[in-house]
Amino acid sequence: MTMNRRSLIGAAGLALAAPGLESPQAAESAKPATKAPPVTKILAQWILASSYDTLPENVRREGVRSFLNWVGVAIGGSHHETVDVAVAALQPFSGPPQAGLFGRAERFDIMNAAFLSGVASHIFDFDDTHLKTIIHPAGPVASAILAYAQMKPVSGKDFLDALVVGIETECRIGNAVYPNHYDAGWHITGTCGPFGAAAAVGKLMGLTEPQMVYALGLAASQPVGLRESFGSMNKSFNPGRAASNGLFAAILAAKGFTSSDGMIEAKRGWANTISTKQDWSEITDGLGTRYEALLNTYKPFACGIVMHPTIDAGVQIRDQDHVRPEDIARVDLKVHPLVLELTGKTAPKTGLEGKFSIYHAAAIALVEGAGGEKQFSDRAVNDPRVVALRQKVVPVITPGIDAAQVDMTVTLTDGRSFHRRIEHAIGSVEKPMSDAQLEAKFTDLAAGVLPETQAKRVMQMCWSLPELTDVGEVARAGVQGA
Amino acid sequence: MTMNRRSLIGAAGLALAAPGLESPQAAESAKPATKAPPVTKILAQWILASSYDTLPENVRREGVRSFLNWVGVAIGGSHHETVDVAVAALQPFSGPPQAGLFGRAERFDIMNAAFLSGVASHIFDFDDTHLKTIIHPAGPVASAILAYAQMKPVSGKDFLDALVVGIETECRIGNAVYPNHYDAGWHITGTCGPFGAAAAVGKLMGLTEPQMVYALGLAASQPVGLRESFGSMNKSFNPGRAASNGLFAAILAAKGFTSSDGMIEAKRGWANTISTKQDWSEITDGLGTRYEALLNTYKPFACGIVMHPTIDAGVQIRDQDHVRPEDIARVDLKVHPLVLELTGKTAPKTGLEGKFSIYHAAAIALVEGAGGEKQFSDRAVNDPRVVALRQKVVPVITPGIDAAQVDMTVTLTDGRSFHRRIEHAIGSVEKPMSDAQLEAKFTDLAAGVLPETQAKRVMQMCWSLPELTDVGEVARAGVQGA
Repeated sequence: MTMNRRSLIGAAGLALAAPGLESPQAAESAKPATKAPPVTKILAQWILASSYDTLPENVRREGVRSFLNWVGVAIGGSHHETVDVAVAALQPFSGPPQAGLFGRAERFDIMNAAFLSGVASHIFDFDDTHLKTIIHPAGPVASAILAYAQMKPVSGKDFLDALVVGIETECRIGNAVYPNHYDAGWHITGTCGPFGAAAAVGKLMGLTEPQMVYALGLAASQPVGLRESFGSMNKSFNPGRAASNGLFAAILAAKGFTSSDGMIEAKRGWANTISTKQDWSEITDGLGTRYEALLNTYKPFACGIVMHPTIDAGVQIRDQDHVRPEDIARVDLKVHPLVLELTGKTAPKTGLEGKFSIYHAAAIALVEGAGGEKQFSDRAVNDPRVVALRQKVVPVITPGIDAAQVDMTVTLTDGRSFHRRIEHAIGSVEKPMSDAQLEAKFTDLAAGVLPETQAKRVMQMCWSLPELTDVGEVARAGVQGA
Repeated sequence: MTMNRRSLIGAAGLALAAPGLESPQAAESAKPATKAPPVTKILAQWILASSYDTLPENVRREGVRSFLNWVGVAIGGSHHETVDVAVAALQPFSGPPQAGLFGRAERFDIMNAAFLSGVASHIFDFDDTHLKTIIHPAGPVASAILAYAQMKPVSGKDFLDALVVGIETECRIGNAVYPNHYDAGWHITGTCGPFGAAAAVGKLMGLTEPQMVYALGLAASQPVGLRESFGSMNKSFNPGRAASNGLFAAILAAKGFTSSDGMIEAKRGWANTISTKQDWSEITDGLGTRYEALLNTYKPFACGIVMHPTIDAGVQIRDQDHVRPEDIARVDLKVHPLVLELTGKTAPKTGLEGKFSIYHAAAIALVEGAGGEKQFSDRAVNDPRVVALRQKVVPVITPGIDAAQVDMTVTLTDGRSFHRRIEHAIGSVEKPMSDAQLEAKFTDLAAGVLPETQAKRVMQMCWSLPELTDVGEVARAGVQGA
């Protein structure tokens, strides 16, 4: 029997409408009557039309930076308890050893490898951020295509194109439903991520247009993650599962598994079902000219973004004005109300609690001149110098300062004072991390996981991504003992 | 580093609230302020407390009937093109040969086996139906636990308890959000199914209470399926993926993978995010005394339920009044408007189109005395005797007849007439299929897939489920060439 969609479509309606005697009209009327454009088809056509050659230079560059930042956080998170647990749980069911994990020695089939990479790269909440939607774009996409690239050789140019296409797909779909979809409770990285992974893998597999439409449809059928799980291992589960779900969708579609022709835009499709807002133009306008990848940002500090300006200011005063912690009498901060609401812990006891203490943020920046994962460790928050200094931090809610800004004045015991006003913190779209800063972050994350020489080699391969003939080499170079 | 949920919970809020500067209060106010009971914890405690000994006799019996019906449809659908495609796509990534599929020779790891069984058992839309929610209960649950039972021996009593617990879990959660959740566009079998599979597998794995709470949380993070995909292979994908997602959730939770403590009821949890209706009492009231399994129904005919009364009446008149098709002058049907709206095709050309033709339904019942998959084949709709008779079928919309009823009068050329009024069609809750009718359905579905003796043996094992020491034997007895 062949599955012709048109001929079967009523079967469901029949089987479903009858039992509850739900009147189709009644159900329809509950839905907006807006006629949506064929979004899924338009997107699929663009996905298939894109190529490395069509990517603007700045998009290629941001794609490479996104990849390098992602590899760094994937290495850094590779031995977190969350990954250890998932590896132990899934090993007995894994297929052929098709792909490895950064920083680890085990090998898995590509479905499990994609999941585990996604978990590892998000566990520190230190991965990239598309601020327009709060999607962490690289995780779901890179986890899926790097796993695939370890099974079937993929050139650096094709890989970079697939990465950009995947990021574009998930972020544009996210734009169409944000903020309503996110405010409702969905973890948008996990719900939009499968589209990005399916698009990117499907692109590498050379899907036909109908197959790509179905791959997006099967991805739409597998949204992942609710905000209630934030703070548990379940949060990093979401980008991981988004990666494996998108890969699963593409693998099935490639063999002829069918879906609807319009799963993104249909009345009973993804956007209308999962969100109260649907802005189709965010998905279809400017495809190939406007790139969401250019809006991707990288966290310089291992904490929430409201603390970033304070750390930025503290590091500047320490390094540029040569201020010594022991000479500091007082640290005045002018901040937005949200800063104290979210990070008002005055006496954190653990590294994790330190992530919610603007007092610790100011102190650690002035003492160590950094804000990486090490500065949010139990060791750091209990360092006597840090404990002493944070008690001298005085944040004051001040009109005219937004949550992404700070005004810091450090007064020394001898009466001298030093001042910084941060309009845009390092890591923002306006003041992106430099390549050197991304390298420092990568090196810091890899320290203790991979030997320095190996980490440096992997980092260099990331920078030369477009020149690679087989991207699988990056993955192989980044495993434990390589 | 340990992941303490409380200490981390703000991290997400911090990382997430800041970028968009979303005011938490603003977001909260968008949500109902109703204080929900600890639904997830209450449900987990009941799941763990249930045992075969605590199940009422009628619940045990319905559990066995649900299992037998599910095995029949799984065998019947095992060689559908949809399953062939999925098997071909997933074989290269499958793990150890831990489990087989009914009617087939291939073996897979239990994750892939659970998915494929779920697909096979739903492809004909001929599986069981919990009419209160339109959930097809057995697919997601039985697919997961039978795969698991092929890896770790499970007794028939424990398996039956897990099956009932899984059905109870998914149907109660479905009751809490139905109909709003379904009307919005979700395929409720795929969105609630993961809870049932996680509960049932977790039960067999002996999870602790916190682990069960987390398994339900990871299941909540993986809803599957949108109604837009109905009519494509994607529809049967949904119960399959629900089975593997629930299994995946339980496997991870068993090793210590954490989630939230209240993923079902929390403000940013499953029910509040995925539905505009949340009736917590549907989940928590009468646990252990009221069983949704008793509301499970089995389709006697391979088509939507609005055509069932007509087929029922036609079969009765043919068999009990010994009416021969060639003697029939006219067939009058008094029907509900929905019947013509959904099944008004007067001249179907394919078996699938036949599923939307009340004319074909009446004709095939009177000609062949049945309404199985074979009666909805291309052969059946093009049988000259059927084509001739359906042209004599005259349905008339009649007040006082609901969509689950029909009034049929067959008038012969010699003037004699025979009448049946069906208030409750066979297969309804009021007039359930008898064990003999379930056996006939099973035998019909297995014909052409398994040798008659083998099918009979598998069916007998299903009936004796509670006496089995290793339920994996049922699966092994049902594979191709066993």
